[in-house]
Amino acid sequence: MPKPQTAPGVLHVVATPLGNALDLSPRAAMVLARVGLILAEDTRRTKRLLAEAGITGARLLSMHEHNEAGRVAQVLEILGSGGEAAIVSDAGTPLLSDPGFELVRACRRAGVAVVPVPGPCAATAALSVSGIAPYPFTFLGFLPRKAGDVKKLFTTYAGLGQTLVFFERKDRLAATMALAAQVLGDREFVVAREMTKTFEEFIPGRLSDLSVLGRELLGEITVVIGPAAQGARQGEEEAAKIHASEALAGGKPREVARRAAARLTGWSATEVYERFSLAGKKSS
Amino acid sequence: MPKPQTAPGVLHVVATPLGNALDLSPRAAMVLARVGLILAEDTRRTKRLLAEAGITGARLLSMHEHNEAGRVAQVLEILGSGGEAAIVSDAGTPLLSDPGFELVRACRRAGVAVVPVPGPCAATAALSVSGIAPYPFTFLGFLPRKAGDVKKLFTTYAGLGQTLVFFERKDRLAATMALAAQVLGDREFVVAREMTKTFEEFIPGRLSDLSVLGRELLGEITVVIGPAAQGARQGEEEAAKIHASEALAGGKPREVARRAAARLTGWSATEVYERFSLAGKKSS
Repeated sequence: MPKPQTAPGVLHVVATPLGNALDLSPRAAMVLARVGLILAEDTRRTKRLLAEAGITGARLLSMHEHNEAGRVAQVLEILGSGGEAAIVSDAGTPLLSDPGFELVRACRRAGVAVVPVPGPCAATAALSVSGIAPYPFTFLGFLPRKAGDVKKLFTTYAGLGQTLVFFERKDRLAATMALAAQVLGDREFVVAREMTKTFEEFIPGRLSDLSVLGRELLGEITVVIGPAAQGARQGEEEAAKIHASEALAGGKPREVARRAAARLTGWSATEVYERFSLAGKKSS
Repeated sequence: MPKPQTAPGVLHVVATPLGNALDLSPRAAMVLARVGLILAEDTRRTKRLLAEAGITGARLLSMHEHNEAGRVAQVLEILGSGGEAAIVSDAGTPLLSDPGFELVRACRRAGVAVVPVPGPCAATAALSVSGIAPYPFTFLGFLPRKAGDVKKLFTTYAGLGQTLVFFERKDRLAATMALAAQVLGDREFVVAREMTKTFEEFIPGRLSDLSVLGRELLGEITVVIGPAAQGARQGEEEAAKIHASEALAGGKPREVARRAAARLTGWSATEVYERFSLAGKKSS
């Protein structure tokens, strides 16, 4: 059940579809139909979504990076007197690379309840089907515009050797992936585009051969880059050791520990076996 | 529209509710009602979910960390002949700290289409309402059992200074947060428990004062730890600079650049202003 409304009001953070209207949850539809105010990144886009869900009469206010600071006081006034509002982004889970952070923060500080109505998120959707070790992963949002800044950002995370997820514009994808190859070395990747839409596509490859990205890719793009290959960065090896030893310590059979480490690193169970000499350890 | 089925079969990776049955999307319900086989972490739990959604007659097979390797061949045989299957976890988005990675990877290698049916995910739900800078963030899954291993893991990420999200068992939470304080310094946190359920609760605090976690916390716990405070770790400062300069380079007004940097770092716009002397830069 949704949390009962508490004074002084509730802000619902509502996830919306990435592209398929049938991905809007019944609770999201109920909340959007009920609240007095919906803060939307692009009100036209949200109007379309509401129409598809049969929701009419909602009061929409635009909130984007250029007017968010100004909206905060306005919304707090409404919520302060016990109202309910919802925030949505153009697609997916609000705040993850979308506006809303300042409003949520201000609500928390003002004692307004902020509750999630969970649903689609491009980053986790792409990860879940990528076949790439899903955690630990770091989500970078939209990459910066300048190649030099992208390079710096990749360099920051190269040493950790774990999975990265980010959004990129289609006209910059080729250059970005070439930079990734240069900084991160030869890793697996999956480029997801138009997820949940008619032309949904997942393009797997390795950074050492970017020819699969040679053609023009249209639509919304999410990139998953896998952990460092068996050349094995320090952080990754550390993480694999920790999780493998944890599985061993938990009294689980060695095979489970090895598979856990393999899942984390993208190495084969044999590689994990050789690297950590798990065979030599007692399994409890 | 869902992707049309292509030979040799489709594996749907289906997100399910964290606790509120109304968070199951119409498409998730349709897919689960249609496929010939559902791979579930805990078949009893999934049976309950299906019953609540009015879905009967589904064929369920358990798949968890102890039998996943064995299931892969079995499932590939079914999908190889053009069938459709779905994988679900107990709650949220499969593969993010749940079983399924080996199966998804094997399907990709065998040319079986793997498509996401996006929905709830505890990590992104907690982030979206935390009031903590939502990206870049790193998701660590369930933390290891031993305090020494948790400490090592935190140490790996301390230098980056960005937001961390992880799951922890209630009886270890106090010790884990004390370790976090020791390794990560004084940062903001939000402990989310029982998200979307009757006793949903978000407990904000700072690592320097863990007294808010003094009472016993029941249920499923997701922890969000914010970026390093203005003491400012290298990686964070770098990221803020990159994004601020990116906003400037994009021809946006200085105020936007400052807010973008503030959002990233959790600093106030004034702090960002002082740190990066954005005032001195041209806004294009």
